[in-house]
Amino acid sequence: MSLAMFLELPDLSAFQFNLVYNMFSFTIATMFAAFVFFVLAQKNLAPKYRVSMMVSALVVLIAGYHYFRIFGSWDMAYALEGGQYVFQEDKPFNDAYRYVDWLLTVPLLVVELVLVLGLPKGESGSLMARLGFAAALMIILGYPGEVSANTGLFETRGLWGFLSSVPFVYILYVLFTELSSTIQRQSGRVAKLLSNARLLLLFTWGFYPIAYMIPMFVEGYPGEAAGAVTTLQVSYTIADVAAKAGYGVLIYAIAKAKSEEEGYVVDEMVKPASAEA
Amino acid sequence: MSLAMFLELPDLSAFQFNLVYNMFSFTIATMFAAFVFFVLAQKNLAPKYRVSMMVSALVVLIAGYHYFRIFGSWDMAYALEGGQYVFQEDKPFNDAYRYVDWLLTVPLLVVELVLVLGLPKGESGSLMARLGFAAALMIILGYPGEVSANTGLFETRGLWGFLSSVPFVYILYVLFTELSSTIQRQSGRVAKLLSNARLLLLFTWGFYPIAYMIPMFVEGYPGEAAGAVTTLQVSYTIADVAAKAGYGVLIYAIAKAKSEEEGYVVDEMVKPASAEA
Repeated sequence: MSLAMFLELPDLSAFQFNLVYNMFSFTIATMFAAFVFFVLAQKNLAPKYRVSMMVSALVVLIAGYHYFRIFGSWDMAYALEGGQYVFQEDKPFNDAYRYVDWLLTVPLLVVELVLVLGLPKGESGSLMARLGFAAALMIILGYPGEVSANTGLFETRGLWGFLSSVPFVYILYVLFTELSSTIQRQSGRVAKLLSNARLLLLFTWGFYPIAYMIPMFVEGYPGEAAGAVTTLQVSYTIADVAAKAGYGVLIYAIAKAKSEEEGYVVDEMVKPASAEA
Repeated sequence: MSLAMFLELPDLSAFQFNLVYNMFSFTIATMFAAFVFFVLAQKNLAPKYRVSMMVSALVVLIAGYHYFRIFGSWDMAYALEGGQYVFQEDKPFNDAYRYVDWLLTVPLLVVELVLVLGLPKGESGSLMARLGFAAALMIILGYPGEVSANTGLFETRGLWGFLSSVPFVYILYVLFTELSSTIQRQSGRVAKLLSNARLLLLFTWGFYPIAYMIPMFVEGYPGEAAGAVTTLQVSYTIADVAAKAGYGVLIYAIAKAKSEEEGYVVDEMVKPASAEA
């Protein structure tokens, strides 16, 4: 297992470099816009659901910061020479930003989902602790495989990838068994939105291990696999946008629907003085 | 179609370079100022119209970010040598920022307009989905033409420009047929403001394809067409300021007029304690 904590990347074509570059920039804009939206949208919700939007806002703020760093690191790691982007040995790409980001944000994503359920206090605390711990463990176990030079399925990458999926399976187990009865207790509209959020979580989170596996089947990753490096970066980025900003919008829709059911209709939350009496 | 995703620009005169440079800086200031205005102005509106200002705020925030990047890229792409701005081959200008910006903001601009109409929920959802999708499609179809080296009317640029205008025509069709009856249902003052917003959208959005067509009629674009490159950048920038910040102010005026009609007069929204009883 390599402890270098950086990646020796291959030279890239102008299209490959710029596709990743512009995806990173797109993600910075999306995350910070989502942050502003989640902060401003809180006032449309019943007070008890505002905290789930607060957590959503933290997630995209942290992610926006990390994509800002990832963008900078990517930009520094390459120089355009003769129409090609040449990897700069003295400024390697720092992929650890992703794992630091995930370590902070992934537990918060499960916390968001639990908060929007509006469970009794004791229940939600234990659920958040268990799922949050499993989420952090999943990220920590994935990292050694990500930075290892032995990228085979039955080598270092495969081993840590497998270990990392144990807590992932546990999270899915809790979401699809323990939480099912809680979801069925909600009204039809809310139950449907909650099922969608759970499915979005399954599909977006399921996308990461698939991307993680790409190097296992590509000869010479990362140093001689320009296509695989590009695909992996683009995949992680799309997954992050969906799993953080997209998911946050869905959590907002759930919080809004539940607020309305409990009588917090935006139009009636602030009355003009003239309308009173 | 070139897949490099960047533009090889010509050397520019000091006037040309600095005109574009200062326009970009002007736009950064305008977009961020507009952002603060749209955030703060929300409290003057009836709650149901606040979300249209929230969306306006997101649009100018995203645009401000991208102009910040565009400004930086423009600055890096040129060096002053002997009174002339010489294009730096190793740091080409990244025009993709514009398209990433438009991909995010143009669908939001139609969403703003639909939100301020205050239609029943089902109607407005379908309208936003259809118009937002058409707007995104319009941007995506324009990009291959923008970065192509074949800039002729009957070449790559012309083809993608034509394809891109199909969804544009659809948007105009919806705005000027389907929405006409909705607009006529409003009070005289609001109906007039809404017609103005629709016209501003037509004129500003119509300005982009005209700018897009400039290279079709200029020999040697972009590498040997300093005047056309300058004109195109200035045109896109003016159009962005009008279509985002200017348009947002108009949406604010509509939201304010509708709020007042519904009894939300600023002077009466918060009463001083001494005025009670």
